[in-house]
Amino acid sequence: MDTNRCQERVARCAGLMKASGLDALLLTKPANMFYLTGDGRLCAYAMITQDGRVAIGVPMTDVGDVRALARFDHIAGFENEVGMIHSIAHHFKEFGLQQGTVGLEFTFLTQAMMGMLTHPHAKPKEIAVKDCTHILSELRIVKDSDEIKRIRNAASVADLGMRAAMGAVRPGVEETQVAADAEHAMRLAGAEGFSRTYVASGPRTNIAHGIPTRRKLEANDLVMIDLHPIVDGYSADICRTVCVGQPTPDYRAVYELFLKAQQAAIAKVKAGVSMVELEQTLHTIIKDAGHGAHIFGPPIHGVGIEFEEAPLPAGHAFFHGEKAPKPLEVNVVLAVGNCGIYTGPWGVRVEDTVLVSAEDGEVLTTYPRNLERGREAENVTDIGMLADGG
Amino acid sequence: MDTNRCQERVARCAGLMKASGLDALLLTKPANMFYLTGDGRLCAYAMITQDGRVAIGVPMTDVGDVRALARFDHIAGFENEVGMIHSIAHHFKEFGLQQGTVGLEFTFLTQAMMGMLTHPHAKPKEIAVKDCTHILSELRIVKDSDEIKRIRNAASVADLGMRAAMGAVRPGVEETQVAADAEHAMRLAGAEGFSRTYVASGPRTNIAHGIPTRRKLEANDLVMIDLHPIVDGYSADICRTVCVGQPTPDYRAVYELFLKAQQAAIAKVKAGVSMVELEQTLHTIIKDAGHGAHIFGPPIHGVGIEFEEAPLPAGHAFFHGEKAPKPLEVNVVLAVGNCGIYTGPWGVRVEDTVLVSAEDGEVLTTYPRNLERGREAENVTDIGMLADGG
Repeated sequence: MDTNRCQERVARCAGLMKASGLDALLLTKPANMFYLTGDGRLCAYAMITQDGRVAIGVPMTDVGDVRALARFDHIAGFENEVGMIHSIAHHFKEFGLQQGTVGLEFTFLTQAMMGMLTHPHAKPKEIAVKDCTHILSELRIVKDSDEIKRIRNAASVADLGMRAAMGAVRPGVEETQVAADAEHAMRLAGAEGFSRTYVASGPRTNIAHGIPTRRKLEANDLVMIDLHPIVDGYSADICRTVCVGQPTPDYRAVYELFLKAQQAAIAKVKAGVSMVELEQTLHTIIKDAGHGAHIFGPPIHGVGIEFEEAPLPAGHAFFHGEKAPKPLEVNVVLAVGNCGIYTGPWGVRVEDTVLVSAEDGEVLTTYPRNLERGREAENVTDIGMLADGG
Repeated sequence: MDTNRCQERVARCAGLMKASGLDALLLTKPANMFYLTGDGRLCAYAMITQDGRVAIGVPMTDVGDVRALARFDHIAGFENEVGMIHSIAHHFKEFGLQQGTVGLEFTFLTQAMMGMLTHPHAKPKEIAVKDCTHILSELRIVKDSDEIKRIRNAASVADLGMRAAMGAVRPGVEETQVAADAEHAMRLAGAEGFSRTYVASGPRTNIAHGIPTRRKLEANDLVMIDLHPIVDGYSADICRTVCVGQPTPDYRAVYELFLKAQQAAIAKVKAGVSMVELEQTLHTIIKDAGHGAHIFGPPIHGVGIEFEEAPLPAGHAFFHGEKAPKPLEVNVVLAVGNCGIYTGPWGVRVEDTVLVSAEDGEVLTTYPRNLERGREAENVTDIGMLADGG
């Protein structure tokens, strides 16, 4: 990330801090530190003052690496946990912060970490503590051109992953093997990691978070594949449901219903529309068809550095300590279709990453939405060959 | 997991709750719920009373799946976040818990989640809240025969992953591609997921948490590969450092030093020994050779459902809200070598999963510890072929 971009973000952050009465932020969430400083890693912190000064603390081993990535000068290395606490205390002093209010990430910090960061050896006694989640969400919700480029790239990688997953789908293959091929293809295309990979088959398509198991796909199973690669620090989100063989009329009817609802919500995406309106569009079509009791999960959420971030729908936002989101702005990125229809014995879900513009929504994940595997998945993969005994 | 095993664990848990003055536990950490109930998933909770009653709440979509996995009868489905809160309130009432103390996972719960679980709509006003991390750590620290079988299996999968990673190591291959081959092999062998995969090369071997990037391996780079597959709910931890080509005398000297220190610590592993003694054994050898300033990270930690769990070394334990661990008992499982030597321009690390017995430590991860790639990694993989233009 270039220095100007980080400086501009810190300046905007300082404005929001002022409006919220925060004199400084003390961040430990990698996604937030990455956004503001150019580097976000585990076991590190960033302190940002209202007048735009930035200090970063990392394991002493990482100082050289961080210096190459982060865009600010105060970079301290610490030896261990106690050193981290002392390093934080040092920066409170260095920045003249002995009273006022510091913002902490209440949606990220555990009770234990909270205890450490507010320990008298870290934080001056007179400094009060407040949640700063809403500031980071507001900063990150509208993406700039560099971020959109990265999300587009992640969406292409997600498409590749889905293609590889579909290539592996056939009777006898385990869910973990479908995940194997999807992740392998995404890694080869540059994924640094995955925010979970879900592959659920048969009765498991009815569960909300289908972590892959060794269950073997059976003829006529449904298979739900949900991928979230991280590429150049940014995520994309794609989900497809496919049938191993010929779909039953029931499968087909419910799948077509969900797809119709998802596409109707996508068709409404543009700046000025509210999350609630999109949610209602999707839900109403499903409810009107008699499947209202089979909906679960927030149907729409934001995508960016995290695969699930602001804007979050009202209920989910509340649970995550965030306010209900404002109407959509240009260059917000959404995942549409995160809920599914869960009939009991099986479920279906289709989800895409969508970029909000003034006139409409541009769908960034383009892998075909077919309940039957098409030609595009017919390339024989390692797994496919194994399963065929070839 | 069988019903008797879960019942026995809940009975032990109840004993520890009594000793800590806790009337109930309200758990949301999947690893802890899995241990006690046979099922642990995201977006769920388990309530356990001191007299051994167990209630589980999950998304309504998941009730059937949970019923097949979990070993207890009170299974409730909820529709959304608000439903979860009401479901918790219902179980407080159902179990007659209107006063007393409930244990929450302070090392897992964010401030936001803490706010939800202690909201007046969830928790009766007269119920006090205390941390229960120490109870779950004490329960899970000594592994039973079923757990050891699963960890052995995970260790074999980790060995396979390391072999595949080594097969991909050569000039021109990206770190993400090495990770791709390792994860693909582990998925094919049944991994449900990974608690991070680290691949760091060249100067990046000096950083503490080397998430793979698109950096291309160069001739004579060091490469540090750290794998953590999850198989049947259990983890293993293996790290190897290897040279792309011929190691320099410097590489060789520091590598041999670290390996000597790691092996000396492993040689001391047996029941009755303390974590501090193991740590000192490892550190002293490195310090005596003049590399004391180049150590970072807790050298030893526990392995089980999580790849990093109790016992944790004293400082790290404190940071994670845990007490310093007792002397090792039979059937504790450790990762030995989690720290490294970080010289500045590059680093080395070798880590193995070790089962504590009365007489010694059995090393469960067996992939050869060689700085030069041996014959065992000479099988040509997809990636190797790509990199060779073959």
